[in-house]
Formats: sequence, structure tokens, C-alpha cells
Amino acid sequence: MSSRVTTKAQSEFIASAFSAVGMPAEDARRVADLMTEADLQGSDGHGMIRLPPYIKRIKAGGINLRPDIRIAEERAATALLDGDNAMGHLVMSRAAEIAAQKARVAGIGWVGARLSNHAGPASLYARMALPHDMIGLYFAVGNANHLPAWGGLEMLLSTNPIAVAVPTLNEPPVVLDMATTVAAYGKVKAKAQRGEMMPEGWMIDRLGKPLLDPKRAEEGFLLPIGGYKGYGLSLIVGLLAGTLNGAAMGRDVIDFNHDAESVTNTGQAVAMIDIAAFGDAKEFKARVDTLVRDLRDSERMPDVERIWLPGEQSHARRSAYGLEGIPLAATLHQLLDALAAELGIAPLAILDR
Amino acid sequence: MSSRVTTKAQSEFIASAFSAVGMPAEDARRVADLMTEADLQGSDGHGMIRLPPYIKRIKAGGINLRPDIRIAEERAATALLDGDNAMGHLVMSRAAEIAAQKARVAGIGWVGARLSNHAGPASLYARMALPHDMIGLYFAVGNANHLPAWGGLEMLLSTNPIAVAVPTLNEPPVVLDMATTVAAYGKVKAKAQRGEMMPEGWMIDRLGKPLLDPKRAEEGFLLPIGGYKGYGLSLIVGLLAGTLNGAAMGRDVIDFNHDAESVTNTGQAVAMIDIAAFGDAKEFKARVDTLVRDLRDSERMPDVERIWLPGEQSHARRSAYGLEGIPLAATLHQLLDALAAELGIAPLAILDR
Repeated sequence: MSSRVTTKAQSEFIASAFSAVGMPAEDARRVADLMTEADLQGSDGHGMIRLPPYIKRIKAGGINLRPDIRIAEERAATALLDGDNAMGHLVMSRAAEIAAQKARVAGIGWVGARLSNHAGPASLYARMALPHDMIGLYFAVGNANHLPAWGGLEMLLSTNPIAVAVPTLNEPPVVLDMATTVAAYGKVKAKAQRGEMMPEGWMIDRLGKPLLDPKRAEEGFLLPIGGYKGYGLSLIVGLLAGTLNGAAMGRDVIDFNHDAESVTNTGQAVAMIDIAAFGDAKEFKARVDTLVRDLRDSERMPDVERIWLPGEQSHARRSAYGLEGIPLAATLHQLLDALAAELGIAPLAILDR
Repeated sequence: MSSRVTTKAQSEFIASAFSAVGMPAEDARRVADLMTEADLQGSDGHGMIRLPPYIKRIKAGGINLRPDIRIAEERAATALLDGDNAMGHLVMSRAAEIAAQKARVAGIGWVGARLSNHAGPASLYARMALPHDMIGLYFAVGNANHLPAWGGLEMLLSTNPIAVAVPTLNEPPVVLDMATTVAAYGKVKAKAQRGEMMPEGWMIDRLGKPLLDPKRAEEGFLLPIGGYKGYGLSLIVGLLAGTLNGAAMGRDVIDFNHDAESVTNTGQAVAMIDIAAFGDAKEFKARVDTLVRDLRDSERMPDVERIWLPGEQSHARRSAYGLEGIPLAATLHQLLDALAAELGIAPLAILDR
């Protein structure tokens, strides 16, 4: 059984929780809106479910609530942001703004960040390119290592996600948001919270046997997509989002599930490409529309009802959940009620069904 | 049984073949050197094996041997090259030069190309960033569609490869070069030429059954890495390398295995990031070295002899083949002897064993 909440109620609840632990009101609203947007598009491993651990980290002093997010290095088309250990949502929103400004002039803008923190689903920041008629790209170092080298046992890499958002004319935007592992760790956590088992192929144990119980997740590790290729992709994303920015990578990555105090020095990068630097933006978007329809309408395998484009299901959820409310699992609801009591704020308002 | 050839002999043979069909000497040498570099690093699906089809295409009038490769659009950090239907190697070498020049000033340079052609292995162009202490990225639309949408039967996408090259201090550079399919089509061709079967997971037929005989490759299609994720990646790479540049994508892609005359309008993109725009380049390279060693020396699964970094095996082959010569399959050797006779040039000089 799951309840539903409106985006407004969810966002207000999150903002009031952050305010209760001392976050400035404007920052609290910005983070709350982005966390709500995550749930709205179905990225339920990165939205409300993260509120209790975020609050725990803030209370433990692991987040700077009065950060000076500043540009540490800058060229015409690039910048390196020092996040000053702020909430990652604030650092990467700022990075996306700078990337768009630079792309508008130079054709592309690439902004990396160090001393950032977990910022929610990768697609949020890639999507920020869309209103500018730009293509958005986002890379991040995951906040806990769950992936060994290919053939290895020591977890030195994370799920290091990639997101790319491409604007369209009349079709939903093409938005790819993928971990370089078969499953993101947030999905494993969501399975655990819902009391469900994982499908084979998500995780293996240290003997290489399939691991199906998400409550045993710490006894094994995630599998990369395409075997050694996914290992390579995870490493490259980590080099671009972490090492290049002087952020944590490999042995330096802090497992934020087990350490709420240490500065994570999370690295992320967002890039935007101005379509107008390559030709007419409207013509480009019309070409993408045609491609989207060619793919969707192409001949299907016998048992396939519909061909989906990347981001199309999230797009549909944005509309549906906007109207019907965002589903809220009973287990998470209980945690949030306990959190509200702990912080002395009004409990989350649930939609009448 | 395979013979071996020196890089010098191979490069001279290729250059004389191109000269014999009318390519200007300087261009012939440049393409020959890049094709030889492909074989030298073990990218044997993209080197000498392509000479007969390239010559066929040139003879059929499918390549412009007197091209005017020009910048069609330009901003401080971006450019769009019109390849004028030149050999792709010439277009993308030029693109890489421009990307490096722009990155040196703006921090990043992103150069797309349209009206290009097949340019060999993706890593060649990503690697061109390394001497500049830059990170190189390369994206390309493959020259034949072998991949349907996820759940589909119509082959609207190609293997659309990604390459990324990251400089190091003392370790071999980290160079990822991967098709977004489990196997590149060039590898399928190489298997066919060697008379070998493919492993399960490379291709399926139209009923979804494994297809193992590379000679039956046209009855099926390649599988994307990570299922729907690889489908999404292939699409995104195609949008960045093809659609953005006004190059062929989806239904417009010309199958260059079956059509040697039509202008392929191949799209590719190369980007370079100047490491110095994000901090000290030497410190960065030392951090990458540490990460490489941490991964290589990490604990291994029981049956694993060694953990490899992306590009490390190619790096080893560059040294070994440089000393011992490049292996040449007997079947390809026969084709090249026939080609030499057809063009009236000296046959390929084989190393004495």
C-alpha cells in the first residue's frame, strides 16, 4: 500500500525539515524543489528517500549550511567550482547556470565541481540545458564505492552516472540517465525499503554468485554494464567528474552511507552545448523529433508492446504524478513521520484517496 | 598461420595503393599512417582490413579525393567542419587539431563534422589530445545500422562508438574505446575473415536467438551493452556526432558495406579538455597514475591473473608489434596481393621469420 503526496506538499515538507536544522530558507526551497522533481519523474532512489540521511549528515556537521560556492578556475568555456561542502543540489544548480552562460557565448560550457555533495539524479542537471535549446551532459562520482575493477574484488569505483538531455520540438525530450552499473545503488536501497528482491544480474557476491536480497547488499557488489566496458565507463566518468576537479575518486571516496561527518569532496561535472553554434536550433529539434518517431514506430519484436525512447517514461510520470500525486511507500512514510516528530515540524500532508 | 609486417612496410603499401587511385601523396601518407596505427594497437577491424573496401569506394567515386575541408560554423570553443566527402581520417585529424587549439585558449574545444567518412578506430582521435596534456573524447555514427531500438526489429542505429583518452605521468595512458554494442561490427568482420565463430551475446537473429556464425551476420543484429542502456547510449552518441552536425543518423545512414557510391554524410565529433584549465596538469597525471596502480594492484577474483586498465592491452601491443611487426592474417594477405596486382603496385613486404 502506498499513499500519494502533491509536489507542493512534498516540497514544503522537505524545505521545512531543512529549515528546522538551520538551512537558509532560499537554499532549503531550492534543494526541496529538486528533490521533489526527482520523485516526480520516478527517480525514487534520489528524492524523498534521501531526506533522512541528508538530515542526519547535516546534524552530524557533515554539510556546510553557510557555504561560499565560488569559481576556483575559469576560462572562456570552462570553470571549476569549489562547492565549499554545500549540499550538492546547490553546487550543481550553480554549475549548470554557469555552463549555460558560457555555452551561449563560446558554444560549449563545461563546469566541474569539487567539495560538492550528493546532488540527486543526474538527469536533473542535464535537463537544465533544455530551456536554453542546449544539449546537457552530466557526470558524477557516486557517493560510495560498490564496483571493483573488472576481475577485481576491492570496491574502488562507484556507479558513476551519466546523463544527457537533448531538446525536441513536439516530442518529449530525449533524456538518458544511467548508472554505469546494471542497477544504481539507489534502486537497491529502494528495493530494500519496499521489501522486494533484486533480479539476477544486478549484484554478485565475492564468489561471483548472484546476490538477490537487497538487505545483503553490503556482502557483494554491483555489476557494470557490458562487463569490462562498464568498468571502463565508470572509471572514465570518475576521472572526468572527480580526478579532473581535484575531487575524491577511488580510495578517497567517502561512503556516505556509513560516515555522516567527513567532508565527502564529491566531484561532478555539467556541460552544455549550444545547438545554435552548429546550425539552426529549430531544424535540429525537428530532426530529433523525426528520429524519435522513426524509432518509436519501428517494427517490434513479437512480445513487445511499445518501444520507448530514453526519458519518455520519466516524462509520462512527470505528467501523471503531477496530476495524481507522487506515490509514497508506507515504509518511507513512517520514517518521515518519525523525522517530523524529531524535528518538531508538521507531518507530511497525504492526499485523500 | 599469420605473417607479420613492419609498420613502415604497411604504411608504405597503403600509401602507394591510395596514390595509385589518385589520392594526393600527403593525404595518402596521413591516412596510411593512421590505418597502420590502428593495426599497431590491435584495432584490426579498422586498419589494413579496410583498405580493399576504401579502394573500392574511391574507384566507385564515393570519396572526394580533392576535398575542401572547411569550417562551416565556429565559436570560441566549438566548430562544425564540412568534410566535403573526404576520407574520414583527414576530416577528423583536422577536427582534432582545431579542438586542441580551441581547448588551449577556451579550456575545452568541441569540433563536430558532417560530410565525413569512416575514420578508423575512435581511440586514434581521442589519443591526439594526449601530447597536449588534454583529455580527448570522440563520438561517431557507425557506417551501417546494425542495432534496432530496444525491443525493435528495424536496424535504425549503429554501433556508435565512444573513445576517451586520459593522460598519465608514468603509467600507460587510460584509453577507453568502445562500441555501444557488445561487439563492434569490425570485430564481426574480422571473425568472418579468420573463419571463426562469434561468442554468444554478440548478435541475435530476428527471433531473438543467438547468432554465432559471422558469415550469417546480415540475418541478425548486434546487441547493445546493458540492454536498454546501450540502446540509449548509441542513440545519444548518434545525436551528438550525427544529428547535431547535420550528418546522417537513423534512416539516413548509408550502409557502406553495400553502397560504395553514395555520399555517406558521416558524422563524428572530437572534444578536448585542457587539464591546465582545472589545475596543475602534472598533479592531475600523478593522481591518475595512483588510481591506475590502485586498480591494477587491487585484490583479484580467484581465476583472474591480472587486472587491466582500459587501453593498457593496446599500449602493450603498440610496443610489441612495433618490435615484432604487425600480425597479418593469411586471408587478408591474399586479398592485398590481389589488390596490389589490380593496382599495379609492389606487393606488401612481409617480414622474414
